Amino acid sequence: MSESKYFQDNMPENVCFGCGHNHEGLQIKSYWEGEVSVCKWTSEEKYHGWSQLMNGGIMATLIDCHCMGTAMADAYRKEGRSLNTEPEYRYATGTLTVKYLNPTPNTTVELRARVIEVKGRKTVMTCELLAEDGTKTAEADVVAIRVFDSSENKETVFKS
Amino acid sequence: MSESKYFQDNMPENVCFGCGHNHEGLQIKSYWEGEVSVCKWTSEEKYHGWSQLMNGGIMATLIDCHCMGTAMADAYRKEGRSLNTEPEYRYATGTLTVKYLNPTPNTTVELRARVIEVKGRKTVMTCELLAEDGTKTAEADVVAIRVFDSSENKETVFKS
Repeated sequence: MSESKYFQDNMPENVCFGCGHNHEGLQIKSYWEGEVSVCKWTSEEKYHGWSQLMNGGIMATLIDCHCMGTAMADAYRKEGRSLNTEPEYRYATGTLTVKYLNPTPNTTVELRARVIEVKGRKTVMTCELLAEDGTKTAEADVVAIRVFDSSENKETVFKS
Repeated sequence: MSESKYFQDNMPENVCFGCGHNHEGLQIKSYWEGEVSVCKWTSEEKYHGWSQLMNGGIMATLIDCHCMGTAMADAYRKEGRSLNTEPEYRYATGTLTVKYLNPTPNTTVELRARVIEVKGRKTVMTCELLAEDGTKTAEADVVAIRVFDSSENKETVFKS
């Protein structure tokens, strides 16, 4: 498999509602812009909360999945290897905190995440969600846990 | 409109992906069991994260919407009135913190929320999410903000 710049394209077995190859899902795509991981995503009417406004849970889903991909990509990058190499690492969410700052129009949003710290299996990140006009409408703190490492040939515990 | 015990049935204009009359949404239903608000919800395959496991963002969506309904129902109850009376109050999320404790099978889950404190327009709650076998797989702290009050005949600001 050749490397794609989109983190999720390097996870062909991923079925996740938010970030997997799931035609009924959100199918987000994340990539690096320097030290920031970026995801641009366009909503559909069904994902509204209030009329014309994006549902807060969908926003949390976008942030969550974008950050799990970011934790993976960051680990590979720190090991100096491309996203299509082994061992494969996969992350699950430990803690997700989202602060909703402003209403978010249910159109196109941009997520921008940064890795703050890596401690063992934990990756700590911040993530902003920007509306189409550039307004920051949510900010989040996210802790990801590495729960799968193909070199260990087994799933590690999900417990943080 | 006659009162339904389900909070969301008393919000006929609600189009929300999580808790509204949205045939493409999750359509959760919440009700009181004493001081605890309860929601039982059965997933579909498309809402998985890992195979057989519920997506963390969908879990956040369930928690978020269940708590917004709980904040509304709690306010009406504290005013000694039923859910189908005016003025209508509606809440939006201020902050949502979810701790993922264990993998959640993508089947039926139960949410159990409690109101901890009401301060002005803010309602502070905790919420547990239980898997079908009773295991607590996530716990959350949620702050809801009253953003609509029909007696004021206008939407108040979303800012917390």
